Amino acid sequence: MTQDVSNALIQVQAAYARCIDNGDLNAWPDFFEEQCLYKITSADNHERGLDAGIVFANSRGMLSDRISSLREANIYERHSYRHLLGLPWIASQNGDEVRSETSFCVMRIMQDGTTEVYATGRYLDRFKLNGHSATIAERIVVCDSSRFDTLLALPL
Amino acid sequence: MTQDVSNALIQVQAAYARCIDNGDLNAWPDFFEEQCLYKITSADNHERGLDAGIVFANSRGMLSDRISSLREANIYERHSYRHLLGLPWIASQNGDEVRSETSFCVMRIMQDGTTEVYATGRYLDRFKLNGHSATIAERIVVCDSSRFDTLLALPL
Amino acid sequence: MTQDVSNALIQVQAAYARCIDNGDLNAWPDFFEEQCLYKITSADNHERGLDAGIVFANSRGMLSDRISSLREANIYERHSYRHLLGLPWIASQNGDEVRSETSFCVMRIMQDGTTEVYATGRYLDRFKLNGHSATIAERIVVCDSSRFDTLLALPL
Repeated sequence: MTQDVSNALIQVQAAYARCIDNGDLNAWPDFFEEQCLYKITSADNHERGLDAGIVFANSRGMLSDRISSLREANIYERHSYRHLLGLPWIASQNGDEVRSETSFCVMRIMQDGTTEVYATGRYLDRFKLNGHSATIAERIVVCDSSRFDTLLALPL
Repeated sequence: MTQDVSNALIQVQAAYARCIDNGDLNAWPDFFEEQCLYKITSADNHERGLDAGIVFANSRGMLSDRISSLREANIYERHSYRHLLGLPWIASQNGDEVRSETSFCVMRIMQDGTTEVYATGRYLDRFKLNGHSATIAERIVVCDSSRFDTLLALPL
Repeated sequence: MTQDVSNALIQVQAAYARCIDNGDLNAWPDFFEEQCLYKITSADNHERGLDAGIVFANSRGMLSDRISSLREANIYERHSYRHLLGLPWIASQNGDEVRSETSFCVMRIMQDGTTEVYATGRYLDRFKLNGHSATIAERIVVCDSSRFDTLLALPL
């Protein structure tokens, strides 16, 4: 694995988190390949091989639809969020395809300033390298907690 | 953008956070250019283009003065703090000048061990590259929360 | 210091955190040299030069023993944990030996989904470089808090 790969992943992960935290949700699907897999699941389900995710999309179009629903429901705008991503761990590289894992912690900041841990977990990713950048071919978001009642609101 | 730039930013961001968390506040102004901009503001004010920051300094001397006041007021030493910085996102590079954004989360650890989220937000930075290192020409600290009553105590 | 060093540290730190968070504790000692130093202490004790750590091991065998005890006591499995590591700050490099400091924050996720900050602090590390990877010759875990009642459960 080369320096370029590590750097490309750091840049795309940082840009991805920034996009969501800045509320620029319409740009969020652009981080993905046209044909992609995006899934949010729990560590418990993931370990037991259960395919029942909370959120599932297999195309950029589905991701865009999801954002539209969120916008209409006006759920996202109520609070602000802050993603903190860990250092990306590169599992393997095969040509222009890289698999990696990255821990995340998302804080939710209420209007009154109260801040709480909203979600923690890890991204299991498959990236497609394009020169110095990378797009997401697959992102499985494995949340540490199994309680998902509030998790439907925000792209993770 | 080159590998060197990414590496230089990672090193200076890590050193900056370490300086504050280790309580080495007298060394903190040295991360800045002699003529610089340092501002703490809220996401709300920043979005609305309001220039009213909570903290403002435009020279290294002003930053040093600020540290002296903190020392005299003995505010800083009561608790300890832990900065967690996200992966730096490089927005642009122009010669020896780099603009980047980096998320942060600061934890406050009380004497009794209680730990709480003290502040979250992002650094909007303009760095001056000097070989393998970098100094801060401009740092706008945009806090997610608008509640700043306690934020005056600590350099962010 | 070279790009390779920075990249090697990022990879080993990310892999280390992943190992613990995934519950793969038997593999944890493999991150260390056969002869090593692993110590957990508090910022207070560390600053005062007190050698009394909470956890101490000076060989990979001792680390393995520690894991066995945890497994038997069945302490670890009750909750899940999420390490978030800061950007590694490289203090010095001398041949194949690198000293660095890295902030950490560990979240604990209870069965009911409650998430709390479990520990914050910094790793004071001495790494041995082996080509593109690195092993830990010395890791002093300096916790910000002095309250250690629960800290015995988990490798940090």
